[in-house]
Amino acid sequence: MADHHCHGVLDRELDRAGFEALLTEAETGGPPGVSPFDSQIGFALRRWCPPVLDLDAHAAPDDYLARRAELGAAEVNRRFLAAAGLESLCVDTGYTPEAILDPPGLGRLAGAPAYEIVRLETVAERVAADGVDAARFADEVRSRLAARGPSVVGAKSIAAYRAGLEMAGERPSAARVAEAAGRLMRQDAPRVHDEVLHRFLVWCASDAGLPVQFHVGLGDVDADLRRGDPLLLLDLLRALADAGTPAMLLHNYPFHRRAGYLAQVLPNVYVDAGLATHNLGHRAPALLAELLELAPFGKVLYSSDAFGLAELYHLGAVLFRRGLAGIMEEGVRDGAWTAADADRVAALVASGNARRVYGLPAPG
Amino acid sequence: MADHHCHGVLDRELDRAGFEALLTEAETGGPPGVSPFDSQIGFALRRWCPPVLDLDAHAAPDDYLARRAELGAAEVNRRFLAAAGLESLCVDTGYTPEAILDPPGLGRLAGAPAYEIVRLETVAERVAADGVDAARFADEVRSRLAARGPSVVGAKSIAAYRAGLEMAGERPSAARVAEAAGRLMRQDAPRVHDEVLHRFLVWCASDAGLPVQFHVGLGDVDADLRRGDPLLLLDLLRALADAGTPAMLLHNYPFHRRAGYLAQVLPNVYVDAGLATHNLGHRAPALLAELLELAPFGKVLYSSDAFGLAELYHLGAVLFRRGLAGIMEEGVRDGAWTAADADRVAALVASGNARRVYGLPAPG
Amino acid sequence: MADHHCHGVLDRELDRAGFEALLTEAETGGPPGVSPFDSQIGFALRRWCPPVLDLDAHAAPDDYLARRAELGAAEVNRRFLAAAGLESLCVDTGYTPEAILDPPGLGRLAGAPAYEIVRLETVAERVAADGVDAARFADEVRSRLAARGPSVVGAKSIAAYRAGLEMAGERPSAARVAEAAGRLMRQDAPRVHDEVLHRFLVWCASDAGLPVQFHVGLGDVDADLRRGDPLLLLDLLRALADAGTPAMLLHNYPFHRRAGYLAQVLPNVYVDAGLATHNLGHRAPALLAELLELAPFGKVLYSSDAFGLAELYHLGAVLFRRGLAGIMEEGVRDGAWTAADADRVAALVASGNARRVYGLPAPG
Repeated sequence: MADHHCHGVLDRELDRAGFEALLTEAETGGPPGVSPFDSQIGFALRRWCPPVLDLDAHAAPDDYLARRAELGAAEVNRRFLAAAGLESLCVDTGYTPEAILDPPGLGRLAGAPAYEIVRLETVAERVAADGVDAARFADEVRSRLAARGPSVVGAKSIAAYRAGLEMAGERPSAARVAEAAGRLMRQDAPRVHDEVLHRFLVWCASDAGLPVQFHVGLGDVDADLRRGDPLLLLDLLRALADAGTPAMLLHNYPFHRRAGYLAQVLPNVYVDAGLATHNLGHRAPALLAELLELAPFGKVLYSSDAFGLAELYHLGAVLFRRGLAGIMEEGVRDGAWTAADADRVAALVASGNARRVYGLPAPG
Repeated sequence: MADHHCHGVLDRELDRAGFEALLTEAETGGPPGVSPFDSQIGFALRRWCPPVLDLDAHAAPDDYLARRAELGAAEVNRRFLAAAGLESLCVDTGYTPEAILDPPGLGRLAGAPAYEIVRLETVAERVAADGVDAARFADEVRSRLAARGPSVVGAKSIAAYRAGLEMAGERPSAARVAEAAGRLMRQDAPRVHDEVLHRFLVWCASDAGLPVQFHVGLGDVDADLRRGDPLLLLDLLRALADAGTPAMLLHNYPFHRRAGYLAQVLPNVYVDAGLATHNLGHRAPALLAELLELAPFGKVLYSSDAFGLAELYHLGAVLFRRGLAGIMEEGVRDGAWTAADADRVAALVASGNARRVYGLPAPG
Repeated sequence: MADHHCHGVLDRELDRAGFEALLTEAETGGPPGVSPFDSQIGFALRRWCPPVLDLDAHAAPDDYLARRAELGAAEVNRRFLAAAGLESLCVDTGYTPEAILDPPGLGRLAGAPAYEIVRLETVAERVAADGVDAARFADEVRSRLAARGPSVVGAKSIAAYRAGLEMAGERPSAARVAEAAGRLMRQDAPRVHDEVLHRFLVWCASDAGLPVQFHVGLGDVDADLRRGDPLLLLDLLRALADAGTPAMLLHNYPFHRRAGYLAQVLPNVYVDAGLATHNLGHRAPALLAELLELAPFGKVLYSSDAFGLAELYHLGAVLFRRGLAGIMEEGVRDGAWTAADADRVAALVASGNARRVYGLPAPG
């Protein structure tokens, strides 16, 4: 299976509070009496992860964390990345609140090639922090994208977290980009949150021939979910379709049916259910079934959106694989499609679509 | 079963590209490597349609299209319209990008009476193209609606595709209608996309005593789905309730639960799941189950929204019929309702509600 | 089970029209030919309620209503409140279009303690009707909240029905509150519908140490559902989180997945599916399953939102209890969680969470 969107894994020990903080999108472990372990993701973790650490399924949280500490982060990371059974990973390298493993390190753990997804806003913020002239900002961003290494296979926009997904379709003018760049560079810690710049960056990626991933739908509490509705992106998606640029809508929950609609009507739109898959745990099959309502099967991809916690690479993969298999098998039993078609389509979704869009080689 | 909203069928041969273009709401058949046959609607078509053409279920797309060509469009159309098993059809005659069968021709194929749904914007655009004085525009629209034939049983608004569903409740003033008509007539190819005109047209239909169908939710890529949310229509629906005019919310996906809510709280609101039913294929039962959560069973209708492709009249009917039967039977098994109530309610949804709202006679 | 949000029950006889008007959120019983009994709630009522009145399940509506009249309202109320099997009730006392039983009366019927939820807008409207000076309005509201009896355990905001849920986060200034109060008091029948006042009232409740319930999602036709989306409440929820005030999102359908997201990412957000549970009847398990996707199990509560009709206290309870049990048992069968965890979590949702948030004693 190809994981077309994930982040690096933390390479240090975690206490219970640290572990819980990485388990969900909440910033804290919950008020007294409310454990994040008592949730779909908590129960799914306790079902699927203890056996990887030689414990019985449904081990109690403290027992699990004790075993985790006993094995140490390096061994835990190695086990879960291997258990995920990935043929390749595309790693968003733009979010690093603390030191995490880089793509090559992650790939070594997974035993699979790790490609890189450039986070566009991070590129822009680094250019701004480096202090180029506002008039040269655009060229500098473009040249840094052009100078990317061969492992870079896509770009990512986090407009949803900042200005929101309601972006115009057309390329912004050089004058407006320079103005916005000027405002950006006057900040002490440059942080892109201007529709013009988000849009400019998307077009830079398009011009560089890169598929563009968009954060859509759920995320941490910083995300104003109202602004993360994929329907807001319609004008820009249409314009990217004309340019032949694949637009990869990530996560999407609870807007996944809307995303599936866009994947049907626009030739360049692809969807996944990363992050939501492991958050929904036992309900992941329901999510995948809804995502697969309108989205053509050639437009649906797998991603974990795992960040930090080694368990999430495995959990996303096992839940997605089982959920997809269950849907396909139920259809075969009911006569909705043949076993051969089910196998063919499951292979597309698991990895064929990712290989085609990002130009990844088949393994072996 | 009564199909209360469909279009005409194409009466010519189709190659694979032409067939694929009519299969989904996409404008094109997808990028290389992505076949619209690999989707819920594609799989549903391959399950239910080949046997009507004497092939085995799950025939390969090329084999299916070869057999289709061998039989010829006239025979294919005849078979699928007959297979649909309809007691009546209400045909939207306002969308004719190319020559399609008119309602009498469609009815002959189906062996059932075909009634007509007047598309309001088409009436207005013809009046404008005919070049009346702006001050006489309103009267001319009204008199054309008044002069409708006896086969006309309803009207349809496509405001969702143009100005969007957020329309005010009150009738627009004569002065504002004349102004808007003036702007319309100054266009080379008059195309209504002004909230005042859409609203005026709805009120013309209401005054003419016609139920008004509204396009809601999914459609082709021209539709900005944000503007197709049925909640936007609340003020106008309330005003139509006061006027005693039935408002028929078509399609609705992915807003079908919101539409069901409106059907519960407003006495004049009815809902269906046309277009979405065949697009969702094997998932149609899940859609119908959600639609039937809040909508009273006396407010839910069947439509195919089939356009062009003969298969869609059959596919909509078979998926709806089976989906509804499955829901009803499961409830009987679980003790949720009696078999007698299930049969009674299924008959309402399949045709009784349509007969009551449009004043259609029972067959035979 | 703790019912953390309900209203009083009507203590008089009801004819069929009166019964139907209380059964759903519609204002009328439907157009000719459309019975509210033919709906999910109607079928659920006919399944679960007749046995409580010594009839067979699925009794015809007229037979049911005849038996109801025969027993009389007092006996019917007693039976259904007892059948609900509640350990406590939190009663919103602010909506009394006609005489209904007060919390002590309701509690006697239920055989359980009945606590009180103060409706904030009602407090403000009474202060305004009493004619205090605009500059003293704020203090008067605060002192009435401070003078609440010991049975008051929470407050409720109906901003969703008036100004909508899009409220700012910060406390409004004294000057703006006085201005808005002045406008309120100049009305003949003061009715709060000003964002500043709704927000002021929420902060008064927060300052008084009360959890705040918010009407969210479906309600009667007065509610503009667009303004009842819980995502609109994000800024205020964040601010209440900083203040440590629990925010209880009520009903939520069809936005329950969005509400579940907020319950995951914000430490102070809790959710329920009151009103929707009995309206969805046989589909209630699907609703609960979706609500439990992202919401931590320690953040989900039970409420009926029953108003007026004794059946609704029972129907909400039986549907919720069965729906939750079904979800938990299915997970045990599938190996998703252990029976012990399922029991523990079900107890949290049924009553443990309500006890913790409102400080209610365990029974017995």
